[in-house]
Amino acid sequence: MAIDVLQEKIRKCKNPVMVGLDPYLPILPQHIVNDAFAANGQTIEGATAAYERFCTELIDALKNVVPAVKLQSACFEALGAQGIALMQKLSKYATELGYYVLIDSMRSDIGPVAEIHAQAMFDSVPIGQERYPLYQCDALTVNGYLGTDGIQPFLPYCKNAGKNIFVVLKTSNKSSREVQDLLSGDRVVYTAMADLLMRWSNGLYGKNGYSEIGAVVGATYPQTLKMLREKYDRMFFLVPGYGTQGGTAKKVQFAFDRFGHGAIIAASRSIICAWQKAGSDGTDYLTHAVAAAEQMKKDISKYVVIL
Amino acid sequence: MAIDVLQEKIRKCKNPVMVGLDPYLPILPQHIVNDAFAANGQTIEGATAAYERFCTELIDALKNVVPAVKLQSACFEALGAQGIALMQKLSKYATELGYYVLIDSMRSDIGPVAEIHAQAMFDSVPIGQERYPLYQCDALTVNGYLGTDGIQPFLPYCKNAGKNIFVVLKTSNKSSREVQDLLSGDRVVYTAMADLLMRWSNGLYGKNGYSEIGAVVGATYPQTLKMLREKYDRMFFLVPGYGTQGGTAKKVQFAFDRFGHGAIIAASRSIICAWQKAGSDGTDYLTHAVAAAEQMKKDISKYVVIL
Repeated sequence: MAIDVLQEKIRKCKNPVMVGLDPYLPILPQHIVNDAFAANGQTIEGATAAYERFCTELIDALKNVVPAVKLQSACFEALGAQGIALMQKLSKYATELGYYVLIDSMRSDIGPVAEIHAQAMFDSVPIGQERYPLYQCDALTVNGYLGTDGIQPFLPYCKNAGKNIFVVLKTSNKSSREVQDLLSGDRVVYTAMADLLMRWSNGLYGKNGYSEIGAVVGATYPQTLKMLREKYDRMFFLVPGYGTQGGTAKKVQFAFDRFGHGAIIAASRSIICAWQKAGSDGTDYLTHAVAAAEQMKKDISKYVVIL
Repeated sequence: MAIDVLQEKIRKCKNPVMVGLDPYLPILPQHIVNDAFAANGQTIEGATAAYERFCTELIDALKNVVPAVKLQSACFEALGAQGIALMQKLSKYATELGYYVLIDSMRSDIGPVAEIHAQAMFDSVPIGQERYPLYQCDALTVNGYLGTDGIQPFLPYCKNAGKNIFVVLKTSNKSSREVQDLLSGDRVVYTAMADLLMRWSNGLYGKNGYSEIGAVVGATYPQTLKMLREKYDRMFFLVPGYGTQGGTAKKVQFAFDRFGHGAIIAASRSIICAWQKAGSDGTDYLTHAVAAAEQMKKDISKYVVIL
């Protein structure tokens, strides 16, 4: 089961960290942008080449340092077709290198549209008698606001194809409370969503006891993490918001169970842009990224021992 | 303001209908698939060629019959880079032909990611000193579960660039009640979302009185439409779920104000696949699509007079 695979990859690296690849020209080291522009001009090709080198070098450098990467769909879509071609390529490359790969697209569709999305991302595209695998990923993020009809199309892939989805419960941003914290009876909206998630998980548990349907819970609300961990002891957490957004090792410790299992912490800019914070010119950005990922491991290990 | 432009386009066609272009091989007329496969093989190129002919012919045929089209992002993403290239092309083509164009991607991001998404979809992609317009649309669908932080990045485009967003309130599917209808105080979640929408609309009203930030409300819940229409008299509704999903003219009448303004009804399969229901072989699918769009206009006009 995919959730066992993820836990095993985390155990091997002893680092419960998923690195977010959110490429965007202003955050790329200048030498990468310069080289790409020199070869391709200030064009979509140039930007795509810069993204490709940046992401590929990070994927290479972080191999065996972190077990998982997250590709931010919107960043690739923003370069149009060429960006999507790159996302396809990177999703395959990271998979080949042994990473657990999540495509972060936070969509919310129902019916045939959700089926088309699930099939394209988790399987292959059927064309006549042929099938074309375009993307290659282990997991997707999904928004559950539309209810079961929006989740159902993904479940066969979680059951039979070794895939996970992560449903957004409680996000790391300040205004997440506006909808997610609305009180309803003895629950808030995000715990009502968590209850739905447990219902969707029926028959979908890995050997480690965790559901193939994980939950997105922000790093910035430690009390929420603690409460959810206690109440939903079979729910695997993907925890964004570490670093730049205010999440710390001290805060995210509550996402883990007593074996140090059940959660992975996502970090993007705090790792891939670590060179900026260090005042570097960017030429050594990989050294800084690896150091930041190692430091994150060290910081988390002060609170969490992964058995 | 974009919402005035939309209302004016509806008035000109006297048809408050947005046609959903959700291409997908199994729903395409066989002659289109055969021709595309004959020229390109059973390949991604073949499928893309089939989608392109299908969508382009529909856009041509429905010109002046309906004022607006909706491109379903997931359907194009499912063909990878080539699908996205086609979505870019179709978004420009439909805009050139005078349609109000909505890209239906139902995303829910925050911070820089939402900014990148908004900029790519509503403006152009800055690369060095150059700017590249990739997509061309008037509106996007957005999921507001993440709160203000997920909406804020779109507001400058609504204020200054003639764009609209439509925030999902209450969807047409059965299980929409699981989250959207949760009771919270004297509101349900979707009215709480509607209250947020009104807050986001501050300073963003068109000359016709409607907000540049519209709401997605399903066609299958007429009492909800009626209640929302009465309570939120400055909120423009995008109403999906007509036809195949069970929405009827009788039900959607409540989405409109007494001038027949304030709403547009989305229909996809009931128009673009009308040939199937008619038992046709698909060669005359355009005739059936136009007839279905005209019939929808006629049906709605029994209940709604557009002034």
